[in-house]
Amino acid sequence: MNLRIPGPIPVPTDILEDMSKPMINHRGPEYKDLLLSTTDRLKRVFETEGDVWIITGSGTAAMEAAVVNTLSPGDKVVNATIGVFGNRFTDIAEAFGADVITLDFPFGEVIDLDVLRKCLNDNPDVKAVTVTHNETSTGVTNDLQSIAEVVKGEFDKLILVDGISSVASIPMSADAWGLDVVATASQKGWMLPPGFAFMSFNERAWAAHAESRMPKFYLDVAQYKKYYEIGQPPYTPAVSIMFALDNALDQLLSEGMGSVFERHAAVGQFTRNGIKSLGLQLFPRDERYASNTVTAVTIPDGVDATALVGKLRTDHDVIVSGGQASLAGQIFRIGHMGRTTESDIQDTLDAIENVLPKVGFNG
Amino acid sequence: MNLRIPGPIPVPTDILEDMSKPMINHRGPEYKDLLLSTTDRLKRVFETEGDVWIITGSGTAAMEAAVVNTLSPGDKVVNATIGVFGNRFTDIAEAFGADVITLDFPFGEVIDLDVLRKCLNDNPDVKAVTVTHNETSTGVTNDLQSIAEVVKGEFDKLILVDGISSVASIPMSADAWGLDVVATASQKGWMLPPGFAFMSFNERAWAAHAESRMPKFYLDVAQYKKYYEIGQPPYTPAVSIMFALDNALDQLLSEGMGSVFERHAAVGQFTRNGIKSLGLQLFPRDERYASNTVTAVTIPDGVDATALVGKLRTDHDVIVSGGQASLAGQIFRIGHMGRTTESDIQDTLDAIENVLPKVGFNG
Repeated sequence: MNLRIPGPIPVPTDILEDMSKPMINHRGPEYKDLLLSTTDRLKRVFETEGDVWIITGSGTAAMEAAVVNTLSPGDKVVNATIGVFGNRFTDIAEAFGADVITLDFPFGEVIDLDVLRKCLNDNPDVKAVTVTHNETSTGVTNDLQSIAEVVKGEFDKLILVDGISSVASIPMSADAWGLDVVATASQKGWMLPPGFAFMSFNERAWAAHAESRMPKFYLDVAQYKKYYEIGQPPYTPAVSIMFALDNALDQLLSEGMGSVFERHAAVGQFTRNGIKSLGLQLFPRDERYASNTVTAVTIPDGVDATALVGKLRTDHDVIVSGGQASLAGQIFRIGHMGRTTESDIQDTLDAIENVLPKVGFNG
Repeated sequence: MNLRIPGPIPVPTDILEDMSKPMINHRGPEYKDLLLSTTDRLKRVFETEGDVWIITGSGTAAMEAAVVNTLSPGDKVVNATIGVFGNRFTDIAEAFGADVITLDFPFGEVIDLDVLRKCLNDNPDVKAVTVTHNETSTGVTNDLQSIAEVVKGEFDKLILVDGISSVASIPMSADAWGLDVVATASQKGWMLPPGFAFMSFNERAWAAHAESRMPKFYLDVAQYKKYYEIGQPPYTPAVSIMFALDNALDQLLSEGMGSVFERHAAVGQFTRNGIKSLGLQLFPRDERYASNTVTAVTIPDGVDATALVGKLRTDHDVIVSGGQASLAGQIFRIGHMGRTTESDIQDTLDAIENVLPKVGFNG
């Protein structure tokens, strides 16, 4: 099977094998060594000297953790969203009682800095801005560094980032860019099965935590911090993924994150070139902000999206994703994170070329 | 390594191997088949025709889910606790604003039904009772059926159960006993690595959910229900554990839960007999309610608990657990869930017999 969805991604065989290691005591010395050493290496990938927490849960759990650990009911929050996952920050923050101003930009576009700037000017009582680095639903990467310069540099607000499909694949520097909380998940560029979320949490986030009155227990970072001090997780973690994380971090860091980012950029460009050469259009309005982890492609007129995705699976064993929410039937998406190669993508492109004429394409 | 802690437990090799299967699309047909078929089989183990949800998280996440999906801030809750994990229900419910009456019974004892009955008589405005089936921190099993008869039969209150170290190991019948929510976790009798929690949720719990105003997002069962209807999980799940769950459920159900329970009862009795024959004392005040999944043993006078647990590990590669919270230094605990055999326990007993004289025991 050629799994080309934007997560879970194909996990390299040697990392998959680590998932079958026998259980250990999560409160014993072996796990302590793993916890401390993987946390140190996660900090290198996040480029932070702040904390990084390993949470057993999905990326959504970490997005919720970002919100509930820093905010209080009634806090005014600006959620700048460019897609389905961006919208999730509004849903989470509202579920916990925040007063959310949703700045939604058209799907396929990036955040407009002037619109964000005007909103923050008009609302001086905003406490935090939530933002998606790489929007998995539209294949668009925001210019997070510039966004942070506005949010932090110009307005001095908390910034909470969904970096689920960017961290470890696309450059992101938590400390240098002044990002207070960045959430990500194991089934993306980390080359791991799903089940772990990772979240950076800096001093400013801790100051917000001290005032935060949103209720929390399982996701309360105070428990993570308390137990980390004795080399333990607060609750029983997904031990198998810890074994795999240990290996994956070694691979990422021995290759060097610069090289990892370059590989993702090259495979992203290769995918976009291939899609265009098939006569298809990229969904992002401007290729300059097309994502290097997931390529979203507009379904051409006359083509049945369900038939396209279905035939790729049944005839070629190639698994791509359709569009989500209002994008269902409008786009399909190809993931290219982790060790995905240009050869992998060529196979996918060949399958798409074969299937297109059978599902109504006459481009 | 002889992992004899009360979870994670040693996972049988063939189930561990399933953890290394390649990733699949969690929104595709293969995962749909797994989700529907494992959920059906989970219902057989829970003995319920209600819902059972698979949550990526620890058992604590499922305890939180039990609370936040049924209650509102200000609701009066009775938490009847006999140990560290029982106390956690108070912490969770209070974190989310419930008005909790904590009925704490001495560690080593079971819930006294008359005390519970009096409390419910004195507090007619109680909405729910939270209770632990098997208290992992003290090695004590409550008589959950009788507790439910009081809570449901006599007082008609919601009952939310921590069945983390009981379900799939000790008899528990969600529907027959009238249990509204039962939470458990994969690293116990399910013979799986940690990372999944399972939670039964009946019609009465759904009625409570409709009125519940505690904030929730990642753990909101409404999202689980909505996505289950299209054969999907709401958020990216720990796919590897799903492969292993499929296998483990086949093994449990083909053996027959009656036989699984009998094995646990026999190994529990074997462990207790062995402990007593070494001249040690069981921590539960009355052996009739000693747990068949974890045996708690009183540290004899003159013995250093840390040295005992440490030497078992360093000299015999036998991993047992110490006591938690106020029980640190007072007890040690031996887990015997899943495929743990009398021969496994004999090895553990032999190691204990060897180490005891070296750590101050002259019994």
